[in-house]
Amino acid sequence: MLRRRSLRLEAVRVEWFETDCPQPSEAHRAAAEARQNVLTKPPGSLGVLEALAIKLAALQATDRPRAARAPIVLFAGDHGVTAQGVSAYPADVTVQMLHNFAAGGAAIAVLARELGVKLHVVDAGTLSEHDVPGVTTDKPRRGTRDFSHEAAMTTDELSFALKAGRRAVERARAGGADIVILGEMGIGNTTSAAAIAASLLGVRAGDVVGAGTGLDAAGVNRKAEVIEAALATHGLRAADVPAAQVLKCVGGLEIAALAGAMIAAAQGRIPVLVDGFIVSVAALGAVRLNPSCAPWLIYSHRSLERGHRVVLDALAAEPLLDLKLRLGEGSGAAAALPLLRLACALHSEMATFADAHISGPES
Amino acid sequence: MLRRRSLRLEAVRVEWFETDCPQPSEAHRAAAEARQNVLTKPPGSLGVLEALAIKLAALQATDRPRAARAPIVLFAGDHGVTAQGVSAYPADVTVQMLHNFAAGGAAIAVLARELGVKLHVVDAGTLSEHDVPGVTTDKPRRGTRDFSHEAAMTTDELSFALKAGRRAVERARAGGADIVILGEMGIGNTTSAAAIAASLLGVRAGDVVGAGTGLDAAGVNRKAEVIEAALATHGLRAADVPAAQVLKCVGGLEIAALAGAMIAAAQGRIPVLVDGFIVSVAALGAVRLNPSCAPWLIYSHRSLERGHRVVLDALAAEPLLDLKLRLGEGSGAAAALPLLRLACALHSEMATFADAHISGPES
Repeated sequence: MLRRRSLRLEAVRVEWFETDCPQPSEAHRAAAEARQNVLTKPPGSLGVLEALAIKLAALQATDRPRAARAPIVLFAGDHGVTAQGVSAYPADVTVQMLHNFAAGGAAIAVLARELGVKLHVVDAGTLSEHDVPGVTTDKPRRGTRDFSHEAAMTTDELSFALKAGRRAVERARAGGADIVILGEMGIGNTTSAAAIAASLLGVRAGDVVGAGTGLDAAGVNRKAEVIEAALATHGLRAADVPAAQVLKCVGGLEIAALAGAMIAAAQGRIPVLVDGFIVSVAALGAVRLNPSCAPWLIYSHRSLERGHRVVLDALAAEPLLDLKLRLGEGSGAAAALPLLRLACALHSEMATFADAHISGPES
Repeated sequence: MLRRRSLRLEAVRVEWFETDCPQPSEAHRAAAEARQNVLTKPPGSLGVLEALAIKLAALQATDRPRAARAPIVLFAGDHGVTAQGVSAYPADVTVQMLHNFAAGGAAIAVLARELGVKLHVVDAGTLSEHDVPGVTTDKPRRGTRDFSHEAAMTTDELSFALKAGRRAVERARAGGADIVILGEMGIGNTTSAAAIAASLLGVRAGDVVGAGTGLDAAGVNRKAEVIEAALATHGLRAADVPAAQVLKCVGGLEIAALAGAMIAAAQGRIPVLVDGFIVSVAALGAVRLNPSCAPWLIYSHRSLERGHRVVLDALAAEPLLDLKLRLGEGSGAAAALPLLRLACALHSEMATFADAHISGPES
């Protein structure tokens, strides 16, 4: 399901996002596994915390994995398809939330402060007519087109959004990044994400749509109908439609930016902590665009949004947390960061049996 | 299953641990719920993080719940039943680990540093003949008796151990405690815990024994046989055996201390973050000794130890994490602390819709 397909936007040149990502260091993975087995605990008894430390050691190619510097990059975008009444909230909320992110009152801003990490907010395609102070504006247009009538974006706009993701990762890593946390905000973006997932996974829209910010059952049904109609309109029910085509027709600018950010981070050897449904769909897109980025993606949590489980299963992802979240913004990924930090501390600081003069198991 | 039974060690006086714990503040719970519903997010979208903040507000009787000051209290004890070959590790390891806790090399010591909380280690009944620097010695005897032959402790020793738990909570709260994290260490203590659980829950030993620190299948079977035989020997298969009798016959000194610590914390309005299998069995004992302590216990994680699920179900517990841990020491509870802290920060610091001038759902 994750095999490479024909992905190029143009026939001839290889796009930047198709360039292979480095592979994790097997030598550092092996060394980290060996170290875990001599720390003062029964082997394997720290479970996922051991696995996380080993994975980070391999990705960061180090004996001392770290998750201290973990900038959060949040991409916001608006969606023309909200004209079809697919969200419980008005589209104005996306831009209002940009101000709330910048002012520090939004959930992700609180989490960033509490975790001591920097929050980078990118307007990757909201309806805002003005730059919002504290937010980087990097968008090819104000909102996507209504994909129930026409393609959400042009090929050039998709290309721009993918690169906006790369530019954001470059800015975030300039301040230091052991790992990057990706989040999103955009009224209507569960509709876009469900459309992408339904096309890329070949499942019915009904299997991947959910309540989003709070639709009732009738609203969820309508959302599924809008998606099914759009997939038919754009020919996205054919087999092997390239991921770039799917993103162009029913994507969101913030979702494309997320996919670009993931690939760029992986190309630059920075692990990515993936948030909930929207970011996981972007991960699915990223892995379809460039399968070599897959090892760099760490899945933080299983959200309540209905399609998330389907997408996580397709990605063979076993998320760290299951906290019934459905907010987005990167909040679930941020909530998982302390587990990575604790895993790294345990790996680096625990005594070995030899150091501590402790007996091993009885033979 | 958790109804009050006849629990007194002596017929006449009410023991300290039977005194009612205060109930959570319903007024603060209601206020916290109301606040969560006006924060800038779809109502309920922070899932368990909302529920945690609301629960802590009710327990701490405050509008601003906190989990900043979260001392860890770890009780260690040895078990005479290890003579029956029920553990993968020799009993010496308990005392060796006391030194590792004090020296900072054990997992829980690393976690305490990383979380910025104090670790209080109590020798509640190890075989150590000497005080270990950095460890509080507070024990009625060195190790329990081998419960396959005789009661693990006398009534006076049980009473001592319960009070040792209370004394430890008093020391921990002297340094400030928004919540207390409880952990344990003791070679052989999954055997004692499984015996307690099998008796209190009326299930077969085979349903609650697991690999502990790393037994093979034959070892696990032997462990179950030792437990079943002991329950018969001590008459603990009868209905309505008082919890105190169960703790006395097959308990551990550290497990009794944990139960005493939980009740004392609850009596003093301090929420308790419960660790894995052993501490959850102690919670079961505490709730049987004094059902009014139940609201004060927050279950941190579901461990890999086989009986944990059975015990959590009996306690109607929905733990926060599921990380395949099986170390003990309080490590899973410590790993869950950041979730409580983040939940508190979100509750106290997020903007409201009115503050941030953000539109609500469309009607």
